[in-house]
Amino acid sequence: MSQVYDRVALIGLGLIASSMFWAIKRAGLAGEVTGYARSAETREIARKIGLCDRVCDSAQEAAKGADLVVLCVPVGAMGAVAADIVPVLKPGATVSDVGSVKRHVIEAVSPHIPDGVHFIPAHPLAGTEHSGPESGFAELFDNRWNLLVPVKGSDPDAVARLRALWEGMGANVDEMDADHHDLVLAVTSHAPHLIAYTMVGVADDLRRVTDSEVIKYSAAGFRDFTRIAASDPTMWRDVFLTNKDATLEILGRFTEELFALQRAIRTGDGEQLFDYFTRTRAIRRGIIDAGQDTDAPDFGRGKTTS
Amino acid sequence: MSQVYDRVALIGLGLIASSMFWAIKRAGLAGEVTGYARSAETREIARKIGLCDRVCDSAQEAAKGADLVVLCVPVGAMGAVAADIVPVLKPGATVSDVGSVKRHVIEAVSPHIPDGVHFIPAHPLAGTEHSGPESGFAELFDNRWNLLVPVKGSDPDAVARLRALWEGMGANVDEMDADHHDLVLAVTSHAPHLIAYTMVGVADDLRRVTDSEVIKYSAAGFRDFTRIAASDPTMWRDVFLTNKDATLEILGRFTEELFALQRAIRTGDGEQLFDYFTRTRAIRRGIIDAGQDTDAPDFGRGKTTS
Repeated sequence: MSQVYDRVALIGLGLIASSMFWAIKRAGLAGEVTGYARSAETREIARKIGLCDRVCDSAQEAAKGADLVVLCVPVGAMGAVAADIVPVLKPGATVSDVGSVKRHVIEAVSPHIPDGVHFIPAHPLAGTEHSGPESGFAELFDNRWNLLVPVKGSDPDAVARLRALWEGMGANVDEMDADHHDLVLAVTSHAPHLIAYTMVGVADDLRRVTDSEVIKYSAAGFRDFTRIAASDPTMWRDVFLTNKDATLEILGRFTEELFALQRAIRTGDGEQLFDYFTRTRAIRRGIIDAGQDTDAPDFGRGKTTS
Repeated sequence: MSQVYDRVALIGLGLIASSMFWAIKRAGLAGEVTGYARSAETREIARKIGLCDRVCDSAQEAAKGADLVVLCVPVGAMGAVAADIVPVLKPGATVSDVGSVKRHVIEAVSPHIPDGVHFIPAHPLAGTEHSGPESGFAELFDNRWNLLVPVKGSDPDAVARLRALWEGMGANVDEMDADHHDLVLAVTSHAPHLIAYTMVGVADDLRRVTDSEVIKYSAAGFRDFTRIAASDPTMWRDVFLTNKDATLEILGRFTEELFALQRAIRTGDGEQLFDYFTRTRAIRRGIIDAGQDTDAPDFGRGKTTS
C-alpha cells in the first residue's frame, strides 16, 4: 500500500485513534503521524508504548502542517477542539472526525472551518468495550464499515483521498447523509447501548437478587449485555445528548413492541411469541452471511473462558 | 473420574442433551447412555454422529432400567414426557431435568413421580445460540454453574450423586429454592432475552432503515443482540409462558429505569447518564474476575471475523 498523506494528526488518543495509528503503520499510509491527548497521563503512556511518531503537548502543535487532522474526541468536545486548531491548519488540509453522531458534529465543527480547508465527517463502525491509548490494535477496522458523511460542496478529490486511507486501514467505505446516518446508528448502536446499560442497572439495583448472584449466573445471557454496558461513559453520555431525537424515537418504538410482547406473555399467547422469535433468527443469519460476525457458538469464547 | 451411574437416559436430544452425552463420555461418568428424540430426523442424525450409546424409538424404551433419566425437552413439554415414562421407571431411579424454569417444572412433573423414585430438578446455566443434536460439545458446562433445586424431602444421597455427575461434566454446582431460581433467572436470562428479541424485531420492522443497512452496520453493538435473539423459539416461548410473573416483574422494573434514562436524555441531564454508565462498568469487572466471561475485546472475536 502506498502513502496517502504526508502528515496525519490524531487529536485524542483513545481506542479509535490508537487503532488508526497501528493500522496506518501496518500499511504505510502516512509519512508521519502526530498525536495529542488532553491528559498528560495519556500522553505519557502514548510515548511509552510508541503510539504516534510524535506525541505533542498541544492540539495546535499536533495539527500544525498536517494534511489530515482527525478529531478522535467525545462528540460533545468536537466543536471546542475544532475551534482550537483552526488557526494552525494549512491551506488544502482535510479535517475529519470519528464521532458516532454526525448531524451534531457537523453543526459544531463546520462554522469553524476556514475557506480552503476540507471538512469530511466520518464514522468507523468498529470498537470494543475497552478504552484508552493501550486498547487499540491494527485489525480493529478490518472488514468493518466506515461511513463518510460529506457535507455540501465537499471536494471530491479530498473525499477520495480520505476513502483511500480508510480502505488502506482495512475498512469498507460507504457514503451517507447525516440524518440518515444518525437514524441508522440509533437502531444499530445507540438504542441497543442504552437498553444494555438499563438492564445491567436494573440487575444491580434489585435487592432480592444479590450482585454476586448476578455475576455468578451471568452466563445465561446477561453477560453479553454487561460487555456493551462497560463502554466508555463519557463517549456514550455525549452520544445520547447529541443524537437525542433519533434515539428517543427508536426507544419509543422499542417500548411499544416490548409492551406488545409483555401482553402476549400475560395473556399466554404462545403463537405470537413463537412467530416473533422465529422472525428474529433470520437477521442473525444475514449478519453472519455478510461477514459481520462469527458463526462460532457464543462468539467462539466458549473454550477460552473454561 | 469414575462412573457415577450405570445407565443414564436423555429424553430430548438438543444442545444440552448432546453436550451432556459428550461430557459424560469425556469423563466416563456412566456405563451406558440411552437417548430419545420425538423427531425421527433427530434420531437419525444422532445415530449417524454417534450421539448416545443407544438411540431408542420411544421415551419408555430409553428410560427403562435407567438409574438417571434427564428430561431435556422444552419446559412446556416436561409434564407430558414425565407422565409417559413413569410406568417403566425402576425403583430407586432419579428423574431430573434441565429446564430454565423450575417452579412450573416441579408443578408439572412432581404429581407423576411414584414413591421410591427421586425427582431432583436442575438447571445448567450454559448454552449457545445454536440448537439441535449436532450443536453439543463436551466443554459446554466447564466452569459454568448448575443449579440443583431439590424438592421437599429429596433424598440426600440421590442429590449428592446427581451433583457428582454435574461436577464430573465440569460444572460448579449450587442449590437454590425454586422461586428464588425463577427470579434470579428472570434477571440474568429471561428479561435480557426478551429485550434482545424485541430490539431485533424493532430493527427488522423499521421502514426507513433497510434490513441490509441493519445487517451491514450491525458491528456497532446490535449484532450482540442478534446472537441472543437467534436462540431456539420453542424453548423461549415456553420459558416466558411458564415464568410469567417473575419475567413481567423484571420487565416492569426495566421499563421504569428505561423511562428515567429517556427522561435524562430528553432533559439533557448528562450527569445522571454519566453516573449510570460508570456504575454498570463495575458489574462487568466482577463477571470477568469470577471467570464467567473473557476479558478479550469483543469476546475475542475481533480477529476471527476480520
